[in-house]
Amino acid sequence: MNIDTKKASQILLDKDNILILTHKSPDGDTLGSGYGLCRALKKINKKAKVVCHDEIPKKFKYLYQDMKEDDFSPSFIVAVDVADTKLLGKTYEEKYGDKVDLCIDHHGSNIYYAKDTCLYPNDAAATETIYAIIKHLNIEIDKDIANCIYTGLSTDTGCFRYSNTTAKTHRIAAEMIEAGAKAADINCSMFESKTISFLNLQKLCIDGMGMYFNDKCALITLTQNMYNISGADESECDSVSSLARQIEGVLVGATMKERVDGTFKVSIRTHYPIDASEICKKMNGGGHKRAGGCEIKLPLKEAKEVLLGHIENALKEACKE
Amino acid sequence: MNIDTKKASQILLDKDNILILTHKSPDGDTLGSGYGLCRALKKINKKAKVVCHDEIPKKFKYLYQDMKEDDFSPSFIVAVDVADTKLLGKTYEEKYGDKVDLCIDHHGSNIYYAKDTCLYPNDAAATETIYAIIKHLNIEIDKDIANCIYTGLSTDTGCFRYSNTTAKTHRIAAEMIEAGAKAADINCSMFESKTISFLNLQKLCIDGMGMYFNDKCALITLTQNMYNISGADESECDSVSSLARQIEGVLVGATMKERVDGTFKVSIRTHYPIDASEICKKMNGGGHKRAGGCEIKLPLKEAKEVLLGHIENALKEACKE
Repeated sequence: MNIDTKKASQILLDKDNILILTHKSPDGDTLGSGYGLCRALKKINKKAKVVCHDEIPKKFKYLYQDMKEDDFSPSFIVAVDVADTKLLGKTYEEKYGDKVDLCIDHHGSNIYYAKDTCLYPNDAAATETIYAIIKHLNIEIDKDIANCIYTGLSTDTGCFRYSNTTAKTHRIAAEMIEAGAKAADINCSMFESKTISFLNLQKLCIDGMGMYFNDKCALITLTQNMYNISGADESECDSVSSLARQIEGVLVGATMKERVDGTFKVSIRTHYPIDASEICKKMNGGGHKRAGGCEIKLPLKEAKEVLLGHIENALKEACKE
Repeated sequence: MNIDTKKASQILLDKDNILILTHKSPDGDTLGSGYGLCRALKKINKKAKVVCHDEIPKKFKYLYQDMKEDDFSPSFIVAVDVADTKLLGKTYEEKYGDKVDLCIDHHGSNIYYAKDTCLYPNDAAATETIYAIIKHLNIEIDKDIANCIYTGLSTDTGCFRYSNTTAKTHRIAAEMIEAGAKAADINCSMFESKTISFLNLQKLCIDGMGMYFNDKCALITLTQNMYNISGADESECDSVSSLARQIEGVLVGATMKERVDGTFKVSIRTHYPIDASEICKKMNGGGHKRAGGCEIKLPLKEAKEVLLGHIENALKEACKE
């Protein structure tokens, strides 16, 4: 059932031993949502914990540090910022994919896999939705919760830069700063802290960038070999995804990141009027209007052809309108 | 005299034929302040115009387009976001340096050159101060004024990223978005629109970057030759200034930009506890705690020595504390 944040807060109030699932390849929004909700539930004496299929990058440590880990057998399953069960990662998909009681999300591409879905596609970040639920629960937002909420807002909007940012996003950010969120420190470690090896990787990306369809599409291919040459770590390369779209005149910026097993993780960032989520859906992915993702399990050359084919179609469609 | 925004609004209400001076090498904050104030004053039927010593980069055109140019002989001189008369540029410094009636600013390094100074050093942008003055004047903020105010907020905070951003900054941004500011479009052209030639220049900057004092200082030297090689335009290179500070572990990021005449424009960006404004003051410059600027009129080698000497001292001072 589709429920609002008030109903979601009422359901949570009735439950205990709450397991919170985040999406694989975790980002600031799924983790900020998970730990923000977890910390809030603990303040009203519920047992709760957050799990993630993949290792959590060190830079997110402040979200969960000093939080006491509860030990319990889960009796209520919540997924946050997870549009599809396959994003839970293999282990959690198999274990909980058909057992999620409540999904709290902001992806228009959500497949409604949970018993109840609390979906606000106009929220810039899932932590906006979490914020509303915490407000309904009348839980005071302390500095730790504020850090979690702020992290989701900031990371999912490119620090209030992208078109998903609304007046509401800014007002919640203001409230979180007043509640003690270390906004500048968070932004510094999310956006400003680059290693020399990452800068070298970025150089390789720019060198190898391909321009297509009258320079309306820029494609970056990030191979395992490039990690080796530059010495950069995969986990610090999120920001490469936004690089291709930043080129003047580009409407679709795509990044193909080669995994260790040779498959590709694809990120697509677009400008109006191209819908990133629509392109990614064609390859069994999803996302938002301006940012989407998918996987391609093909060798480089074929993967590139498939990806560029879908991008070309989207550009043609947009020009027809 | 030091006056508050209410007093500044009362003074402006009494005056007409208002000339608004902005600082040379104009940025989003001085221009947003100037055109925001100018548009507001015109709404209460005053004659006002904005001038700048240097050419205004094309990307700021939306701030003044569709605005009717008033023709008048100035009887009241206002400077916005201008901490020192020498920042007016040679022509305007000579003509108006000792004739500024009102200075509206947010630089702690302001030298109080005006008859009245309305200075709010805790405002993230001078457009925050301008916003307060427009509010006191009871002028409705339309979409054009909102674009001006928002531009200052966004550009002077690195899009709400830096430590100068406050809850108030976010609340004004929210109000500007509701008043019709095209926030995403503005951010896109300020931060997201890079030419291939600029990316090539950035590569040259990274290649030539020097690390000093146990890697606590990164120094980028941008020569005229590098503009020639890359084909990049000087006006699109603002963002290079923030690059050096982004390196992990760096406390002082400095950029020396060579001018056509061989002198250097220096930008300094710091992390806590280093005060950028203090370093720049040593070289007759100024600014804020985390961002400052100055000029050095020496050949490259000597200029570098002077700059690094002051940075070394600042790092030593900070370690002593």
